[in-house]
Amino acid sequence: MPYFRPNIVAMDGYTPGEQPQAGKFIKLNTNENPYPPPPGIRRALDEVLERGLQRYPDPMANSFRLRAAEVLNLPGKEWILAGNGSDDILTICTRAFVGPGELLRLPYPSYILYRSLAQLQDARWEEVKFNADWSLPAAFGSAAEGLKLVFLPNPNSPTGTMISREAILEFAERLPCPLLIDEAYVDFADFNCLDLVARNEKIMVSRSLSKSYGLAGLRFGYIVAQPHFIEQLIKVKDSYNCDSLSIAAATAAIGDLVWLSENREKNIATRERLSEGLSKLGFALIPSQSNFVWCTHPRHPARPLYEQLKQNRILVRYMNYPGWSDGLRISVGTDEQIEALLTLLKTMV
Amino acid sequence: MPYFRPNIVAMDGYTPGEQPQAGKFIKLNTNENPYPPPPGIRRALDEVLERGLQRYPDPMANSFRLRAAEVLNLPGKEWILAGNGSDDILTICTRAFVGPGELLRLPYPSYILYRSLAQLQDARWEEVKFNADWSLPAAFGSAAEGLKLVFLPNPNSPTGTMISREAILEFAERLPCPLLIDEAYVDFADFNCLDLVARNEKIMVSRSLSKSYGLAGLRFGYIVAQPHFIEQLIKVKDSYNCDSLSIAAATAAIGDLVWLSENREKNIATRERLSEGLSKLGFALIPSQSNFVWCTHPRHPARPLYEQLKQNRILVRYMNYPGWSDGLRISVGTDEQIEALLTLLKTMV
Repeated sequence: MPYFRPNIVAMDGYTPGEQPQAGKFIKLNTNENPYPPPPGIRRALDEVLERGLQRYPDPMANSFRLRAAEVLNLPGKEWILAGNGSDDILTICTRAFVGPGELLRLPYPSYILYRSLAQLQDARWEEVKFNADWSLPAAFGSAAEGLKLVFLPNPNSPTGTMISREAILEFAERLPCPLLIDEAYVDFADFNCLDLVARNEKIMVSRSLSKSYGLAGLRFGYIVAQPHFIEQLIKVKDSYNCDSLSIAAATAAIGDLVWLSENREKNIATRERLSEGLSKLGFALIPSQSNFVWCTHPRHPARPLYEQLKQNRILVRYMNYPGWSDGLRISVGTDEQIEALLTLLKTMV
Repeated sequence: MPYFRPNIVAMDGYTPGEQPQAGKFIKLNTNENPYPPPPGIRRALDEVLERGLQRYPDPMANSFRLRAAEVLNLPGKEWILAGNGSDDILTICTRAFVGPGELLRLPYPSYILYRSLAQLQDARWEEVKFNADWSLPAAFGSAAEGLKLVFLPNPNSPTGTMISREAILEFAERLPCPLLIDEAYVDFADFNCLDLVARNEKIMVSRSLSKSYGLAGLRFGYIVAQPHFIEQLIKVKDSYNCDSLSIAAATAAIGDLVWLSENREKNIATRERLSEGLSKLGFALIPSQSNFVWCTHPRHPARPLYEQLKQNRILVRYMNYPGWSDGLRISVGTDEQIEALLTLLKTMV
């Protein structure tokens, strides 16, 4: 394949979870919220549609930044940059910090996309294995030749585990480069690291409205970093990276903390029900602070379980992490969906 | 500024045209369509909202690809990749073809963003000046050390001029790398180059729904290239680069050829009225095949004209191209808007 950069031709490309566009599935494979988003977004969308779509959006999504700064208790909008989903934010950061041949660090096992982002930059990547208790070894905070950026999903996927605030501060102290805390799932967790951004300029936090706000279809995420960092990141984003509809809906959604809290409680309650049910069926699982659980079964290999579930129109995510394990990552659905899953699994294990 | 890549720190960043979020302006500065988009999009958006936004979109936007392949008379969806605006497409292509230190070629004067895309890749860029008759010299099709991608906006911005199909085929024959024909404005022109993609794999065509479909607020564009090119480009895009709402609206819009044709005629008629009016006021202008005109005035410098218009709440785009000229790029608005502009200009020149 001539013309293309060799690193592009050589890479496989990231494969997102299945998104069947037809047929009825109970979809527990990509950590979407099973409930619709905050109701206020409908009016916000209608207002945009009444004004019309023929004008460009605000390139900086300032209405969102202002509202989010208020809600998140930040000094001002200068601490926030909006993105076309948090994947856009991860791309922007990789391009801003990591050049060809330089090094990106990530924990293992974690979000597989990070590796693809390094490959797209023709950069190297280094995976640091979690300890047995899902903490990270001191090496995660060490200097290394060419190290330019560290990704830390917190809670992590596929495990749902978390690294403590103390450990993160300590890693950031020692690291020679920025540390991006990917908080895509943090609204389902016991704590977050947003306030650490002010304590060390190397700490940045990214968030997504896809999961906890039920807006995966909308593509909206953001990063919180110190203003002199945001200024540079702005140069890297596409001029109009967020559209008028998503900006309006995200601005309406971010402030609905009552909805967020109720939705969080529902998801956590169902997560506990799912975890108990899986345990009773003999699955081994890792206690999760997210909206999914990772599980394996001592007697039943994961792949046939995934396939049999799919034949019965329940989609979960089969994942295989060489050197660690394969297993199933099951998203929290409604109680009815989880009931249907457990009932079916009972006939299989 | 430590931590960031030196090429990022060194660059200024692209500044898009002003998008005032408040106040009433006659907005003729960013080539938006003055008319609302095809009416069918409203139902398409409502259907998505009824299904809900909590699910991820189709990562490949296949409904759009299928419909667009039909409408554009392409062999199949494998010839199309959708993007978050055609800026996303331009970014994807730059990342796919051009590595650090390699060379990107573009005509001069043209779309300023191309230069920023090269800077973001830490690549070099080379500007080939248009001839006096707005054709391009043979050098535009020559080989050069490290040349990996050529951008050709057709019609060009800010001039509204076009390079012929014959010249493009001839450039592509001689070039050692792909040639991206940026057809953002082509629906206002006399011809397009879409069918040339099948004749030479090096020819790719990008399009936008922002201008001719009145959907700048939505962020939707696409590229047409041979399927083995599309396969590689897919690896470079963000996993879910288009959202559910934009995919549905773009799918509904692309097929409304009656609307497109009527809208085109209205814009062209007003463009001719604008051009005549400006000529009568003594402006020099270049005959445009787009939805804007470039003009200068022999006695009145462009910047004060721009500023005086802005004070009177009419926004046009002041642009300065060192080594060529500064001037005003004025978008085609409604007849009423253009009438207001000409009336005001009459008091100024």
